[in-house]
Amino acid sequence: MGGHMAKNLLKKNYKLTVYDLNKSAVSNLVEAGANSASNVAEMSREVEIVISMLPSNQHVVDVYTGENGILSAAKKNVLLIDSSTVDPSVSQSIASQAKKDNLRFIDSPVSGGINAAKDGTLTFMVGGSNIDFDYAKSILEAMGSRIVYCGDIGMGQAAKLCNNMLLAISMIGTAEAFNLGQKLGLDAKVLANIVNSSSGKCWSSDLYNPVPGILPNVPSSKNYEGGFGTTLMAKDLGLAQSAAIRTQAPIPLGSLAHQIYRTIIAHGFSNKDFSVVYQFLKGKN
Amino acid sequence: MGGHMAKNLLKKNYKLTVYDLNKSAVSNLVEAGANSASNVAEMSREVEIVISMLPSNQHVVDVYTGENGILSAAKKNVLLIDSSTVDPSVSQSIASQAKKDNLRFIDSPVSGGINAAKDGTLTFMVGGSNIDFDYAKSILEAMGSRIVYCGDIGMGQAAKLCNNMLLAISMIGTAEAFNLGQKLGLDAKVLANIVNSSSGKCWSSDLYNPVPGILPNVPSSKNYEGGFGTTLMAKDLGLAQSAAIRTQAPIPLGSLAHQIYRTIIAHGFSNKDFSVVYQFLKGKN
Amino acid sequence: MGGHMAKNLLKKNYKLTVYDLNKSAVSNLVEAGANSASNVAEMSREVEIVISMLPSNQHVVDVYTGENGILSAAKKNVLLIDSSTVDPSVSQSIASQAKKDNLRFIDSPVSGGINAAKDGTLTFMVGGSNIDFDYAKSILEAMGSRIVYCGDIGMGQAAKLCNNMLLAISMIGTAEAFNLGQKLGLDAKVLANIVNSSSGKCWSSDLYNPVPGILPNVPSSKNYEGGFGTTLMAKDLGLAQSAAIRTQAPIPLGSLAHQIYRTIIAHGFSNKDFSVVYQFLKGKN
Amino acid sequence: MGGHMAKNLLKKNYKLTVYDLNKSAVSNLVEAGANSASNVAEMSREVEIVISMLPSNQHVVDVYTGENGILSAAKKNVLLIDSSTVDPSVSQSIASQAKKDNLRFIDSPVSGGINAAKDGTLTFMVGGSNIDFDYAKSILEAMGSRIVYCGDIGMGQAAKLCNNMLLAISMIGTAEAFNLGQKLGLDAKVLANIVNSSSGKCWSSDLYNPVPGILPNVPSSKNYEGGFGTTLMAKDLGLAQSAAIRTQAPIPLGSLAHQIYRTIIAHGFSNKDFSVVYQFLKGKN
Repeated sequence: MGGHMAKNLLKKNYKLTVYDLNKSAVSNLVEAGANSASNVAEMSREVEIVISMLPSNQHVVDVYTGENGILSAAKKNVLLIDSSTVDPSVSQSIASQAKKDNLRFIDSPVSGGINAAKDGTLTFMVGGSNIDFDYAKSILEAMGSRIVYCGDIGMGQAAKLCNNMLLAISMIGTAEAFNLGQKLGLDAKVLANIVNSSSGKCWSSDLYNPVPGILPNVPSSKNYEGGFGTTLMAKDLGLAQSAAIRTQAPIPLGSLAHQIYRTIIAHGFSNKDFSVVYQFLKGKN
Repeated sequence: MGGHMAKNLLKKNYKLTVYDLNKSAVSNLVEAGANSASNVAEMSREVEIVISMLPSNQHVVDVYTGENGILSAAKKNVLLIDSSTVDPSVSQSIASQAKKDNLRFIDSPVSGGINAAKDGTLTFMVGGSNIDFDYAKSILEAMGSRIVYCGDIGMGQAAKLCNNMLLAISMIGTAEAFNLGQKLGLDAKVLANIVNSSSGKCWSSDLYNPVPGILPNVPSSKNYEGGFGTTLMAKDLGLAQSAAIRTQAPIPLGSLAHQIYRTIIAHGFSNKDFSVVYQFLKGKN
Repeated sequence: MGGHMAKNLLKKNYKLTVYDLNKSAVSNLVEAGANSASNVAEMSREVEIVISMLPSNQHVVDVYTGENGILSAAKKNVLLIDSSTVDPSVSQSIASQAKKDNLRFIDSPVSGGINAAKDGTLTFMVGGSNIDFDYAKSILEAMGSRIVYCGDIGMGQAAKLCNNMLLAISMIGTAEAFNLGQKLGLDAKVLANIVNSSSGKCWSSDLYNPVPGILPNVPSSKNYEGGFGTTLMAKDLGLAQSAAIRTQAPIPLGSLAHQIYRTIIAHGFSNKDFSVVYQFLKGKN
Repeated sequence: MGGHMAKNLLKKNYKLTVYDLNKSAVSNLVEAGANSASNVAEMSREVEIVISMLPSNQHVVDVYTGENGILSAAKKNVLLIDSSTVDPSVSQSIASQAKKDNLRFIDSPVSGGINAAKDGTLTFMVGGSNIDFDYAKSILEAMGSRIVYCGDIGMGQAAKLCNNMLLAISMIGTAEAFNLGQKLGLDAKVLANIVNSSSGKCWSSDLYNPVPGILPNVPSSKNYEGGFGTTLMAKDLGLAQSAAIRTQAPIPLGSLAHQIYRTIIAHGFSNKDFSVVYQFLKGKN
């Protein structure tokens, strides 16, 4: 993701200084015109805006607040944009530490996946002050086609978690309905026509149907390759779950969806698109 | 339902003979121009097409196959159209008995609720032979705006059950996501905008949002009055559950949705629209 | 099951007339001293007490109420004992038909499995009148070591369904707790000691632990062979589910347990003991 | 809890220095013979063994690792015993910080509730080194009747979470089975007799039955007062959930149990014993 996003910034003539643990990712970008830094602190010291893309809560905490982290090195008033998907409370905690250091922080997780990152058509869901949002908008537009203001710090994360939880639930629901329908004798395409012009319609049934052969270019028609992996979905559902524990919001279907993706991963589907839940429910017979 | 449907037939100048246990329903229709019969057999004996609308599996079995039921009285070759929502296996069993009696039977459950019945804009989901479907189509068009062929006998019921199960799942999922989002600090309208232009979009979030005040004319904005009641949703989920037991199709979220509606009813929400699940999850605080 | 039960009756010198679709089962019993009948009606005509052991609702309905079924052939006042596991409403419906034919019917499902059938140590859960129970008791004691009166007709079935639903729930709960505990670093035997002297104790943790190696002679220590199969458990949970639909009792965990066993079966564990859910949750890693 | 535990230590003639934010709790103990400290650091500086009992992860982190926390003040080699119920990873993180400061730390959560605390009959589940366990044992025996070694640091917490998750699942399962049984016509006492001598037996059905009137001295027979509150159960299930997210262990029933307790609390049962789930499922009718 980060590599594609960086290339789109270079295309729009932004000056970039990059850092990644993965050296080939860095050298790729250097060839494309970026400078490289030898560590996070060096990178942070030089720039006007920091954009981070990291895999987990702990990585974000370490990279921002660790001994030679971004907060220790960035110049006064620099805007820090974290595009990682993490717990809203992590974003909130880093933002309040950043403020003490006279730095500005916004959360800005993305949706759209690897293809949207490549094409510069990501959606950014942004949480932070209005002023920081306005300032960030133009640079985010170099990487995405939709930049949505979600509210205060953490609200970008909150919006992403809620959307993805609902996505997981409706995908599993779609898989259940289509598996049941076929076992009852219904043709899957007939069912798709009915559902998609009725109250059962959802993005998963309409634009990302999990039954192979209904839609031509979705993962289910390509052996569940590509798309949005079960592991990423399980991660997002885990974040939703943690948020629900903290806020004491009941999420019965969201919790069960999380457990279903956990079980799917345990059964060897960790490299498949999340619509593979249809295959999982259908089983071997 | 049945009363509204009958009135639309009268408006289109169909000759009607009606029967109902509820005498005021009958006299209402007689005033509007229908003949009345004094029992099911008498009604069945006189007509070219029978249309039934009944509350449960058992009622349909009794009215069709009971001692003085429709099958015992209808003339040879009459077309029997059952618009009740029942188990597909009930439709299949009656159809095969009808065949022995030289009668034709199709299942034709509806969606759209009381308002669509009144306006003649119901959707009919039809299972049966192509010939019977073509024959039934014109009369069904007097009562509905969408007449969909779903396949063999029982497939109208199957399509309805699958659609409504997916509807229940996505409604509960929407309620969970919006309750969680607000507990995290998100504004519900902001979340609706994001979800409805993203992968979490579903009919429940987009056109029937369960959070009061997001959409003006939906039940959630009218104290969850009107609409599609929790009791009807629990009934349909029970039918889906029975079908899943029989076909051995796993429906984890569908089952849980059923239990959630059962619990909601036990807590005194039996007269509310099914979007009241949002209120139920939110609780008293 | 039926074969072992019949042999125990022969050992206690009961005179037996047997019928089964499986001819080798019949010839086995004939060798052991039973007479055979060539169909259900012939068998029913000759005896003072009928005992049936059948696989499903439909089989029981057919064998009792079908054209040449037990009700059509049995002599007045004969006691009919159905030891099949079926929906309580099936038992109730047959009992009321039997009554019209001056026959007496009780439901008497068993627990204990194939080994208890062989050893004559089954538990019989009986529903019916007190008088019929007293009359049946001595013959049931030839096949079982515990004959429990559960109440009116159908209550034997009700008791079995409720017990087995709770069993499935606590087995899955045990599997979840022991899998989670081990992933957290706990030794499974240490956890078993703690749970089994604490509030988490249940039959599944204490006497039938699903983790291989904790107890020596349970299915989990023998590659989940023998015992009570996942298919039988799914059947009983399906009956519990149907009963819950009819009585409108919410069973959220019971429903989910049913779906989990459905999914387990779809994944190729249909010949394993129901404690294999531990293996299923643990997955391939 | 802490107050009762302290009194039992005083009774056994231990010299105590106590600190609590709640001043009347402190003055109570001073009257009973304890010294009081004016803050955590002062308390920690003076003692050979520290015992803490705190309500949440965050409290434990703050009190141990905060600026004037226990780790900053305790003398070299002092043994720190945390009896709070927290995430095992919290215990592990504090233990490793304690080690750097040449302090010894064990986790030692309790079960048994307020009455066992009063009577000195708590169960302590201990995680830490064997040497620290042996050293701690005698002082823990002043407050409890069962001191169980569970393994390395964090394993006391792990054992408690797994036990309580299984407890919640079997309690809800018991409530479902007894509610369903009664709706089917079974007498609850008859069902209790059957279940408790069969495979459905669990601590919740046998010793803590949630149906009023089956057992005389349990919360269900006292309007669900006293006992182990729904809020505490929801807290423990939240910890189990977090542990499951981290270790990627599927806990479908555990997750659903958590959501059920969340919903129960939202419906105004936050001050009731956790067996009130029976009442919740039964509903108002």
